Order: sequence, then structure tokens, then C-alpha cells
Amino acid sequence: MTNKNNDVFEQRTIKNIAALKSGDKFTGIVKIIKKIHPGPVIFTVSNGYGVADAVIKDSAFNVDDIVEISGYANERAGKIQIEIEKIREAKIDFDSIIDKSSEPSNTSFTIESERLEKLRPYFHSISKRIRRAVFENQPIMIRHHADSDGINAGLAIEYSCKLLMEQIGVNPGYNLYRSPSRAPFYEITDVFKDVVLVKKIIEGHGQKKPLIVILDNGSTPDDVLGLKTMKSMGFEMIVVDHHNPVIIENKKTLVDPYLSLHLNPYIEGLDSQTCAGMLAYELARWICEDYFNPSLPAVAGITDRSNIKELEDYINKSGKTRKELEEIGTAIDFIAYQLRFNPGKGLFEELYTNPELVKIINEEVRKGSRTQLESTLPYLRTQDINGIILSTIDLEKYTMKFTYPAPGKVVGMIHDTVTIDREILPVVTLGYLSDMIIVRANKPVLPVDKIIERLRKDIPHAHIEGGGHECAGAIKFIPAHLQEIIQNIKNQAKELDHEEDIENDN
Amino acid sequence: MTNKNNDVFEQRTIKNIAALKSGDKFTGIVKIIKKIHPGPVIFTVSNGYGVADAVIKDSAFNVDDIVEISGYANERAGKIQIEIEKIREAKIDFDSIIDKSSEPSNTSFTIESERLEKLRPYFHSISKRIRRAVFENQPIMIRHHADSDGINAGLAIEYSCKLLMEQIGVNPGYNLYRSPSRAPFYEITDVFKDVVLVKKIIEGHGQKKPLIVILDNGSTPDDVLGLKTMKSMGFEMIVVDHHNPVIIENKKTLVDPYLSLHLNPYIEGLDSQTCAGMLAYELARWICEDYFNPSLPAVAGITDRSNIKELEDYINKSGKTRKELEEIGTAIDFIAYQLRFNPGKGLFEELYTNPELVKIINEEVRKGSRTQLESTLPYLRTQDINGIILSTIDLEKYTMKFTYPAPGKVVGMIHDTVTIDREILPVVTLGYLSDMIIVRANKPVLPVDKIIERLRKDIPHAHIEGGGHECAGAIKFIPAHLQEIIQNIKNQAKELDHEEDIENDN
Amino acid sequence: MTNKNNDVFEQRTIKNIAALKSGDKFTGIVKIIKKIHPGPVIFTVSNGYGVADAVIKDSAFNVDDIVEISGYANERAGKIQIEIEKIREAKIDFDSIIDKSSEPSNTSFTIESERLEKLRPYFHSISKRIRRAVFENQPIMIRHHADSDGINAGLAIEYSCKLLMEQIGVNPGYNLYRSPSRAPFYEITDVFKDVVLVKKIIEGHGQKKPLIVILDNGSTPDDVLGLKTMKSMGFEMIVVDHHNPVIIENKKTLVDPYLSLHLNPYIEGLDSQTCAGMLAYELARWICEDYFNPSLPAVAGITDRSNIKELEDYINKSGKTRKELEEIGTAIDFIAYQLRFNPGKGLFEELYTNPELVKIINEEVRKGSRTQLESTLPYLRTQDINGIILSTIDLEKYTMKFTYPAPGKVVGMIHDTVTIDREILPVVTLGYLSDMIIVRANKPVLPVDKIIERLRKDIPHAHIEGGGHECAGAIKFIPAHLQEIIQNIKNQAKELDHEEDIENDN
Repeated sequence: MTNKNNDVFEQRTIKNIAALKSGDKFTGIVKIIKKIHPGPVIFTVSNGYGVADAVIKDSAFNVDDIVEISGYANERAGKIQIEIEKIREAKIDFDSIIDKSSEPSNTSFTIESERLEKLRPYFHSISKRIRRAVFENQPIMIRHHADSDGINAGLAIEYSCKLLMEQIGVNPGYNLYRSPSRAPFYEITDVFKDVVLVKKIIEGHGQKKPLIVILDNGSTPDDVLGLKTMKSMGFEMIVVDHHNPVIIENKKTLVDPYLSLHLNPYIEGLDSQTCAGMLAYELARWICEDYFNPSLPAVAGITDRSNIKELEDYINKSGKTRKELEEIGTAIDFIAYQLRFNPGKGLFEELYTNPELVKIINEEVRKGSRTQLESTLPYLRTQDINGIILSTIDLEKYTMKFTYPAPGKVVGMIHDTVTIDREILPVVTLGYLSDMIIVRANKPVLPVDKIIERLRKDIPHAHIEGGGHECAGAIKFIPAHLQEIIQNIKNQAKELDHEEDIENDN
Repeated sequence: MTNKNNDVFEQRTIKNIAALKSGDKFTGIVKIIKKIHPGPVIFTVSNGYGVADAVIKDSAFNVDDIVEISGYANERAGKIQIEIEKIREAKIDFDSIIDKSSEPSNTSFTIESERLEKLRPYFHSISKRIRRAVFENQPIMIRHHADSDGINAGLAIEYSCKLLMEQIGVNPGYNLYRSPSRAPFYEITDVFKDVVLVKKIIEGHGQKKPLIVILDNGSTPDDVLGLKTMKSMGFEMIVVDHHNPVIIENKKTLVDPYLSLHLNPYIEGLDSQTCAGMLAYELARWICEDYFNPSLPAVAGITDRSNIKELEDYINKSGKTRKELEEIGTAIDFIAYQLRFNPGKGLFEELYTNPELVKIINEEVRKGSRTQLESTLPYLRTQDINGIILSTIDLEKYTMKFTYPAPGKVVGMIHDTVTIDREILPVVTLGYLSDMIIVRANKPVLPVDKIIERLRKDIPHAHIEGGGHECAGAIKFIPAHLQEIIQNIKNQAKELDHEEDIENDN
Repeated sequence: MTNKNNDVFEQRTIKNIAALKSGDKFTGIVKIIKKIHPGPVIFTVSNGYGVADAVIKDSAFNVDDIVEISGYANERAGKIQIEIEKIREAKIDFDSIIDKSSEPSNTSFTIESERLEKLRPYFHSISKRIRRAVFENQPIMIRHHADSDGINAGLAIEYSCKLLMEQIGVNPGYNLYRSPSRAPFYEITDVFKDVVLVKKIIEGHGQKKPLIVILDNGSTPDDVLGLKTMKSMGFEMIVVDHHNPVIIENKKTLVDPYLSLHLNPYIEGLDSQTCAGMLAYELARWICEDYFNPSLPAVAGITDRSNIKELEDYINKSGKTRKELEEIGTAIDFIAYQLRFNPGKGLFEELYTNPELVKIINEEVRKGSRTQLESTLPYLRTQDINGIILSTIDLEKYTMKFTYPAPGKVVGMIHDTVTIDREILPVVTLGYLSDMIIVRANKPVLPVDKIIERLRKDIPHAHIEGGGHECAGAIKFIPAHLQEIIQNIKNQAKELDHEEDIENDN
């Protein structure tokens, strides 16, 4: 059944062991990464560029040994197998081989961008580390925020890793995991679920401890607990995020002690405009240059309200209109809302190739948005406080439960409506639930972190939490104090002229 | 190891390839439906009546090829395998063979019924389509409403398909799926979950795109979004339902553009009395005549409050008393409430053979019903408005949370109690939660769709949704307007004499 | 490929068939517990002390047959296989062999304890029954309360069974299941989920009906429904619990009719101080004496507020300080809260070996506790009623939602704070949600069951449920009556001098 038929093949230089065909002869140095026995021994071996099975009647070599083998390739049950004729110890520095193959072969960005160039060293180290995990058969677990930006970031890294794995002969089924986080940070519940999944993979399939890659989450103080917990259990984590780390000293954030690598534009003096989907897409192209989906970074940027020139470049490159891209993003957000903790494997991808599906969902979202607006606007209370147009709305009373768009998005829509024809005035909109206020503003007159700072001082028993940008954010608190908090924010607006003095007092 | 021992077997006419026994010789025309290679090639082949594996050292034939093969059958790892001796191309119209085997062999109903006879063509086309899926190794995904009627419908189709699959040598484990829908329609969340499951089946096991069968759901305007979404992704769907499609023109409903087949008694001028469990049971017997569970359509009918003569026939055929059947239905509803999204595989079936289990659950339900009634009745506010006995009850305040029976059923029980000794008067009972009113009536004085129509006109900002029959239904709305809505319904009762005039105004 | 190389091995006495090595000869009497055919027959056989595979070309013997076999052991795909040379019927009482091997080999407790000695017969019968299940290849399903005591109990039984299974050659992957119950009893939802899982195991893997072991739950009247339901479906159940069964007559409780074995200290006149984790740990050591984790019973005891001398002994034996042990328990409770219905496989275990992880979680818990206390204490209403310091707090208004510690624990912390410097006075603290009051007391002036008894008499429509100890418990009711119930409890405090008279009236 062996096919030692073709001497010409013997001469072929086989770099990627995964590209062997039946009848090829392979001679080379490999690392043993798995051994199944007894009976005939089946090794899984890597030559640093690919992975293949190699069989021999018996052998004393073990996992992690570096050996030189030679033999003919043969197919068996759909997989290539090298039938080892000779095997002997090889004394070489195999690490340097892996190190070399892990070097990204593509190191150019898909668009010209000073922002991206500034971040180039991060792209190099992170793409190399992820490629190394693939070449070493280490599983990769992706965690990402469950909105359009985070999901797109997750898809980019997932698919580029999948492609690379397939190219080098590794089974993505056991080596690639992706889960959405509903919270805008790496929540402790997600951490524990990940650990349980890892324990199962390791016990069940004898896999290595995975590399954790956190996307569109991971950079902020809220992430410290989760990252610290994972680190205490010996996990290596990489974060690619564009949210404000708040505290940065000497290019170090609060989460850095727990990470092996951290890409965040703020660290290099940039802002959140280069969103996670853009960063992850470029990174994905460094991980595996054959991967591409030029619409993806454009969709991520549009849904995250990016307005830098890079977004225009991505839109131009996508071959789609801004409206088409925006509708894909809207559909992703809608599906993510419905699926909750389900990663939606295979479904989000379909949106990039099925415009009819995108259209159906967008019609539904438009209908839902109209309903939520019509239900809330008549009950919005709008006041002119000290020149600020401040509106409040009780979301529990005036919105439909369990209906998309959810309260957070509804406040955004209400705010956009209130702002029409008042663009030059400062407009602030507060939507409240029993234990949360969602804030939207068109101008940074009352930055959310300032509001929170003041509330903490004035109403300490309310245990104010939350955060956000200058013009958008959420404030959480003990329910009993809702009315007092709303009144306090109105007072903050009233006192705004004197705001600076108050600041200096602290 | 071959058993070419018995020449007599060679002469046997083997119609169903799945019935081959070790030592039998098979000669016939088959379609290749799966090919595993390299090494010895393992084909999965269908002769249109059954499925079997067939092995050969090597072969250039591929999936979808029609070939004539001959060889002896042999057992291997518990499965029959034809050891192919001869194989050659066959130029026949295999489709017509599948078409013939897909014809239902049983086409009689288990009871005499003019209603069923009127629907006979639907039974023929749907049973044939489902049988064809089985013969072509196409997976079948069943979605059904999660109440006794829907679950019984689901069980009937599941078990008849399972039996047919086993008879023809197909593994139900990879080809048959069943999930309950908690909403009374094919909700978009369920749709997305189904798509994710399908993507997993197809990627993981190389299965075909499944045929979707929707039972006791699927006919109404609320189903349009889900069905349209599935259709846009290329799914074929069949609906068997008895709910009012509301809009029917030339025997076409709003959902028909998205379905390949649609059985609903309303389309033929009938009503909801022939419930989904009855329809599915008769269909199941056409799919596989060896399937039977004569109690099933009776249980479905009783729990769905059917009162046609067909129900009496089913009860008579079941060999059980009405009370026994009703208690099985009650137990199904109770278990479905507890299991939520879990299909309860194996558990519902047990109720048909374990009277002790049925008894234990019914005792518990009776206890819970008593508690809910005792807690609510003293706080029921009953008025005589314009000759109508109208009662209201706050279900959030006066019922036990997370306790069966749930609020919807509690309103039914309260209503039945209020009606006692007032059967001749119009009695209307309203149970309300913060964003919903459940309506029960003994006479169609205030049909739910009329109530909704009027509310929509009078209180548009409340975004009234919902629907139901003339005497039962649910009204959903924005929470803020609850009191105004209740008052409006009372006014509708007050103005009832003038109702006709108002109608004409519109 | 056979290794009949070593005549010396033939003489070895092989008691545990699972300890066979390649080349060993085995001769002995075994029970066939599984048969795979056709092709060469693969039997799974047990000699009463271990399980192994045995192959033969063909055989008419079947599952449950007792046979004498002889043959050499050989490895195949990582498993030992006996290549049967001779096989013949054996007429012996195999049951008595299993019975003998099921006898626990270790029957001593890890500490000296009169309490444990009093319960010795229960330890014997239960450990023997569980060992028998392992030796007979019967799956074991463990259900336990989802707090530190229950989880520790679950881990002890799980790991001791796992170790025994591995020692005798049974695969724990198919034979050992563990699930947490969030309710403090064997809830009907959990029952139905267990049945569905069992049906899947039996149908999918051809397993036997499992033995159900319920830990830290199962003894109380609330458990009757679940146990009765399981019993009606033919399940055998064992309960190991320390909660008060309330009704005990002639050493029989309300749940005994449904159990095969029941260990509860109350049955022998003891109390809840010997907690489930202690009982299960000692039991685990009888199941498999090689299992040990001396910290486990100490952690269970501390978190369940045990204060018997046995706890001191366990703490001493643990080699850890009380504080270290307490912090492990706190971490278990925190993780259980986050994981909800997930059994957390592999995660809880890590707490016993990873002090850094324990420290991180405890810091988080301390922070959360501080927040909850600071938010509630200023709004606590404390009165002196008839010499009793009675405090009330609205937990929905004054605590953070979805934040650990949850309301139940918060009331405990508030109560502890109120009691400081008032230890000699009777202090009672009531924390309320819309449909529940949580009670904590330092002295049994108002035992929870007395409060409930009185409420049931005075406010029957509120449908009072719940229970607890003398100084701690929960009262559930119809939401509408919250204020009336609080007032009634205050009145009960007021009338306390006359309490006895009222009692006598009933």
C-alpha cells in the first residue's frame, strides 16, 4: 500500500510538513508535540512550519524531543502520515526555528495611516505571539465585547487564526475558541466560565493551556479583577482594546502587570477613534495574510462612531457604500442582542454576503426604533438649565421591555432627536432605570466622570459606579437614591459657571 | 471472513438495502450520498428505500453519482457493509425512484372526519416531503410551541421520523432535532439559535441543510419576521398550525411566500378546533405507519380545549378516560414550564406510560392552583358594567412569583371561578402585570382584537400589541399607561350598546 | 504481536483485573458487563475487583453471564485487553464476590468523634452501596446544594469515586456526574433536568440507570416532591444531609419512603453541627481510602458556622489556619454565586492549592461587603420593642443589584453589625424584598417557625412559606401583604410575654 513510486518527489524541498502529499519523501528535523501509543506509535510532529502525523512500530522518543526523521508520506483515514524509516536525536535549537516561522510574513497595513504606523511595534509582537501559539499547537481563546466593534474584532482574529491553522495542518476544532462578553469589561463571571472550559479542554483532549486574547475589552480599571484572577492561575493574556485606560504612567496602565502584551492607542497618545475592529483586522492580516474581509474594519468603525480619515479609507476599500456597511453593523448589534452569550458561530459572517438578510433585520430595527421613540418622546421632560438643554426620561415606564433597541440605545436616539435644530446649544439627555442613569451629550459640558466624581462626594451612600466618555456614559447606584441623584445632576448643570472653582477646592 | 455461504440468499429480492443481513448478496442501483477516503473507500449509498455502507479498495465515483453495484453484505463494527465486487455507472432517473419511495404508504386517518378529509391534499404533500428528506439523508429540525398541544405535535413528528430513519438505516442522532419555542410564534431569537445549530451540524458532520418543520406555531403575522429571515438564508420550511392566520386571501396567508408547504385548517375555511397535535399525529402516521400513540391527539385536544366530535373519537380510541388524558396534558404543561428551553427528550414520553408520575405532578399542580386562587380571589375587583361582569386583578401583587401555574393560567382559573352560577351573563376577567393584560371571557362581548383596535386609536403612545381569540388573549403595552388602558377597557364595556355605531364610523 | 514472553508472570496472582500488564496471563471468573460485536467480540468484564476488556473471535456469551476466562493481556490503543484463549460458563454466586469487594476497606474516621461513631452504621451501608455502583459500572449522579458546605460535600464524593473508578479501570467520563442545586432542596426543575440527562446517557452510551446521591439537600419536607417524582421513575437515591428533617418518627423522616439510604445526624438525635461537608468527607475516605483533602471538612464547617469540637480537630488536621480555611470557603461561595448552574469542574479544586487566587477573591468580597453595608446601615430602622432590638431594611431599595454578597448574606452582615455591643440583648434583623423577608437573630426569642405559624393564622391569604433555624430563616409570601407581615412580626415581638398563652390556645 506504500507508494514509493516516484523518485522525483524525494528531491522536493518540503518546508511545510502539512503540504506533504502521498508518495512524497520527507527528511527533516521535527519536534514531537503529541505521542499516542501503545501499538504502533503515532507521533504528531511539527517542523516549525507545519504539523503532521508520523507512525513507527515503536519508539522511546517522547513529547518535546527534537528528532530527525525520514520516511514516505501516505494517506490514512483522510490524513497524511509519514511512515518513519529512520529516527534519531537532533541537537539543534528548535526554539529558534519556531521563532523564525512565527515572524509575520506580511507586515504592511491595508491602508496608509500615521496612527497605525505609530502602533507598528505592537502589531509585530502580538501577531508574532499569536502565530507562535498556532505553530506550537497551543489553543487560542478569544474574548470580545458583544457589540459590532467587538464582534468584528473577534471574527477577524478567529478567521485569520483558523486559516493559518488549516494551512499548517492544525485542527481549529480543538484549538480555537471565541466567546462574547456582555459587560464592557472582562467580567469575573466570564473569567470563571473560561477557566472551567479550559479545565475541560485540557483534561478531555490533553491540550496545552490556551493563550487568552481579549478584544475591545481589557484595558480599563474595571478589567483588573478579571485579569488578575486569570494571571493568578497562570494564564497568559493579550489585550487589544481602544477604550480609555484612564490611568497611564510611563506607557503603563493598571492592567499591564497582568498582560504579556497590550495594544491600546491611548498608550501611544492616541484616542479611541482607531477602534478594536480596525486594530484586530490589521492584526489578522499579519497573522495570516491570506485572510481578508475589507468591509469588516469599516463596519466596526461606523458602528463605533469613529470619524477619522482612516474610516473613510476603509469605507473606500470595502467596495460598499457607507449605508450598506452601517446596516451590516446594525444587523450585527441586533443579532448579538438576541443571542446573548451565544457566540453566533457562522451567523455574523453571513451578514457580509447576504444583503437580503441585512435588509430584513434593518427593517425590523427601524420599526422597533420608531416604536421606542414614539413611546418615549411625548413623556420626555426637557428644561433649559443655565443654558443647557437637559432632558430626562423614565425608561422603565416608557419603553417596551425585552425589545430591541434596548434602553441604552434608546437614550441615544432620543438624544439625537432632541439635538435636532439645537446643534449649537449644549444638549444633555438622561435616561433612567431604577438603578442606572444613561447619559448622552452633544458637548462636553458635563463630562460623565465629573458628574460621577461630584455624586460620589455629595451622595456617598448611593455608591455611585460607572463611567464613560465625555459625552456618553452610564452611572450605576443604589436604587433608593435615584431622585436625589437626578436632582444633583441638575444642580451640577445650574452651578456650571462656578464649576472650575469647585474643582480647585478638591 | 466473508460469508459467501448461502446461494439461496442471492436470490432474495432486497428492496430495502437497510434490511441486508450478513451473507446476503446485493445487486442494484444506488445513489452515493457520502464518500470517505482515502484508504479503502467507504461509500454511504441509498437505493431509494434504504441506506447502507459499501466498501471498495478504490473508486473514482463520487457523491451524487448513480451507480449499479453488486457484492456480499458483511457486518463490521455492528453495521452492515456491502463489499463491492462490481460497480459501474447507471443511467437512470434516480429522482423518480426517490419520488416513488417518498409516497406515503399509509394514507388513511385514524378516525373518520370530514375536517381531516377536507385537508387530505396537505397531508399527502407534507408527509411525502418529510419522507423524502428522510430518504435523502436530509436532517429534519422540528420547532414547536412549548405547550401541551405543541409538544405533542413535536413528539408525533419526531418519533415517526425516528422510526422511519431506523427502518431505512439512517442515524437519527445526526438527522433529527426538536426544540420548543416559548413564544406563541417563531421568534427571531429561536431563528438565530436554529441557524447557529445548523451551521454547526453542517460544518461538523458534513450534513445537508435541514428541512425546518414548524408545529403549532408559524401561521400568524407574528411569524413573518422569523420565516422571512430563514428564507433569506435559503432554508426550506413547512408549517403545520391551527392558529388563526388572520389574513387569508385566495387561500394564501401572510406567511405563505416563505413556506414550501403550509397546513392550517383556516385556509380551508375551518377553525382552530382541529389542533396541532391532532394534525401532527395523523401526519406522523402517514410518515411512518408503524408509529402510533393513540392517546396523543386526545391529550393535545383536551389541553387546547377542543370540543369537536373528533376529540370524542380520539378519546374513545385512546383506551383511557378523559380525566387520565387531561392529567397527562397537565403534567406536560407543568414539565414544559419547568424545563423552559430544554426539549425534555425522553421525559414527556414517560408520561404516557407512567401513571404514578402523572398523579404526583397533578397533585402538585392542584396544590399550586389552589394557592394561586386563594391568594387572588379575595382581591379581585368585580363590577357590573352595563350588564357585563367585569373583574380585574393585579397579578404581580397577588400571585406567587415563579410558581406554577403562571399568571396566564391563573387568570383562566379566576375567570372560571367568577363565571360559576353566572353562566348566562357576559363575564370578562382582566389580569394585569406592569406591561400586559390577560383577558378571558365567557361570551364574545368584547373580542380581544376589538379591544386592541380601540386602544390603539385612543392611546397610541402606549404601543398596544398582542392578540388572541374572541374570548381569550393578551394585550401588551408600554408600562406607564396601564391604568389608562384598564379604564379605557371599562369604558368600552360601558359604551357597548353603541359599539356598532362606533364601528361604522371607522 | 502477542507477548507470551514471560512465564513468570503467569504465576502472578491478579486480583484487580485492571492492574494487568502486557504479557500477564489472566485466569479467573468474571461477569460480562458489556458486549460489542459483530466482528471480533469485545467484552467488558469485571472480576469484582476491576474492569477490563477481553477479546475473542466469536462468542455466544452475553451481558450478565458469569464465565471463567483465561488468556494473555495485551495493550491495544492505550487499553489493556485480555486475548481470550478459553471461555466457559462458571456456576458461582458472583453477587457475593461483588458484595465482598464493595465492603469498604477503610472504616476509620479521620478524627475521633462520638458524633461520627453514633452514625457509623450509615457510613458503612452508604459507602458500600456507592462502591458497589462503581464495581458494577453503574453511573453515579451527585446533586448538592450550591454553597460552600454543599460544594465541598460534592467534591469529596466526586473525587473519591473518580479515584476508585480509575483504580479499577472504569472511565469516570461516562460514569460520574455532579450538579449544583441553587435551591436549598431538591427542586423539581433540577429533577426534570436530571431525568433528561439520564435519558441521554442511557440512550447515547448504553449506560445503566444511575445511582443518585444528594448531598447537603434532601432531608426536608421541601424535598418530598422531587424525591417522590424520581422514585416514580424507578431511580434509587441516597441522601446525606444535616438539615433538620422537622418530622422524625421512629427514626423515619418524610423523605425515607423514597430513599434507599439516608444519613442525617438528626435521625440519631444529633443536630446540624456535623455539616454535610464533614459527613461527605468521612464517607469519601470509606469509598476510597487513597482520597484525601484534610482541609475540606474544615472549610465546610467554618462556612456553615459549625462550632463543635470536631471542627477544631479538622482545623488542626488541615495544616492551615482558621483564617486561611475561612477564606477558601468565602471564595467557594463567591464562585458558586457567579457560576450559578455550572458545576465549576476543576475551578473549586484550585482554591485548595492556589492561595493567591483565594486572596484576590477575598479582597473583592470584602470590598463588596463594605459597599453593601455602607449602603444599607444608614437606612436601617431600629426599634426597641418590648426589650427586643428589632431592625428592618428594604433590600431592593438599599442594596446593589446582581452584586455579591447577595441580599441573604447582606442581612447576616447587617445583623452582626447591629449586635456589636448589644450581645446580651435579644437582637432581631429583618431584611425584606417584595416577596420575601430574611430573618437573623442572636437569641431564639422569635424562632422563624413560630413567626411563620402565627403569620399563617393571622394572614392566610398571604400564603406564607419558608422556614429555617431558630435564629435564621426566610419567609416567602404574596407580595401584596409585605407591610402587613412586617407589622405582624413587630406585634409578635410586642406580645412576647403572652406568647406562651397564645400557644396554648391553639
